[in-house]
Amino acid sequence: MDKNELRNKLVLIATRLFAERGLNGVSIRELSKAAGVSISMISYHFGGKEGLYSSVLQEQFSCFGHIEEINNADVEVLTKIEAYIRWIIVRYRNNPYLLRFYTSELTNPTQFFSLIVQPAIEKVFQILMQIVEEGILNNKFRRDLNPADTAFAIAGIVNYYFLSTSATQEIISHLPDRDEELIRHCMDIFTKGILHN
Amino acid sequence: MDKNELRNKLVLIATRLFAERGLNGVSIRELSKAAGVSISMISYHFGGKEGLYSSVLQEQFSCFGHIEEINNADVEVLTKIEAYIRWIIVRYRNNPYLLRFYTSELTNPTQFFSLIVQPAIEKVFQILMQIVEEGILNNKFRRDLNPADTAFAIAGIVNYYFLSTSATQEIISHLPDRDEELIRHCMDIFTKGILHN
Repeated sequence: MDKNELRNKLVLIATRLFAERGLNGVSIRELSKAAGVSISMISYHFGGKEGLYSSVLQEQFSCFGHIEEINNADVEVLTKIEAYIRWIIVRYRNNPYLLRFYTSELTNPTQFFSLIVQPAIEKVFQILMQIVEEGILNNKFRRDLNPADTAFAIAGIVNYYFLSTSATQEIISHLPDRDEELIRHCMDIFTKGILHN
Repeated sequence: MDKNELRNKLVLIATRLFAERGLNGVSIRELSKAAGVSISMISYHFGGKEGLYSSVLQEQFSCFGHIEEINNADVEVLTKIEAYIRWIIVRYRNNPYLLRFYTSELTNPTQFFSLIVQPAIEKVFQILMQIVEEGILNNKFRRDLNPADTAFAIAGIVNYYFLSTSATQEIISHLPDRDEELIRHCMDIFTKGILHN
């Protein structure tokens, strides 16, 4: 196994263990046993358990940079909002442990929260606010919208849809084959509201 | 200390410890040390660590029953939705560890998830759907709304507002003195949507 393969293998195994038990719930001994490598190899490649956890977090949150591409695309604001919703869906479907790290770091932060997690989430939030401001400037969105609370609304529905999956999946399907319908409903509620005119 | 005081003290101390380290991250020995009571007292009152965790969860989620009162009030549907938003805000402001147990059980469930957490969250979700259905029947809400996805939207904005606090509070105040403004913005976005007509 070359250096990169070993690092990738360690990150992969550590992701599951840290997701299930948190940074403090996993010992370097357990990590070394689960990966079949020596403790000194973990120290050599990651500087110890904390370094390995930091690499796991970095990998989980690396996809957050994609929000820049969404914002820079030469499309109108509603298309950007739909692209954001699609990206969140893909993000959770491709990273089964992301929601665990995301909520765990937000509600019970480790020392790496302010370095890795906070800037990633704040960036996405700031860009959502920019998109709302762009919509207001273009006369597409209502002038009296508060960009921050509108950003919470957009981020809230789709993040909460995934967060609540295990408690609501008996009421409504959370399978990928309903994703297009979900996107349509999200866009419909945000653009038109729920009131009958 | 009488029996009830001892139980309350144990639940209080265990709440913080379990919130910070999870069910598996806390030993009965640590619980006994932190509370200044013997291990056998914990076993006598709660049947062990798992029983104590179950009591902590039950206490954290006991407030979820309040959704029935919101739904049974003789008020119109929009007032019910506003009452739901107000309740979620009070719920998180009064229970600083609730969001931690809520997200931890949803993303990394213990054996008590299906007994305590899942029914509590599902109940709230079902009643939100009923409120939306009532609004559609009364011709207040649009007929083409999907009740489940509309419930995700309502629950999403306010839950996500609290979830994201530590990552977004530098951009916008999350202090209680902005709560009335937040409620007004939530209601405004849900009822009218973001589009400029």
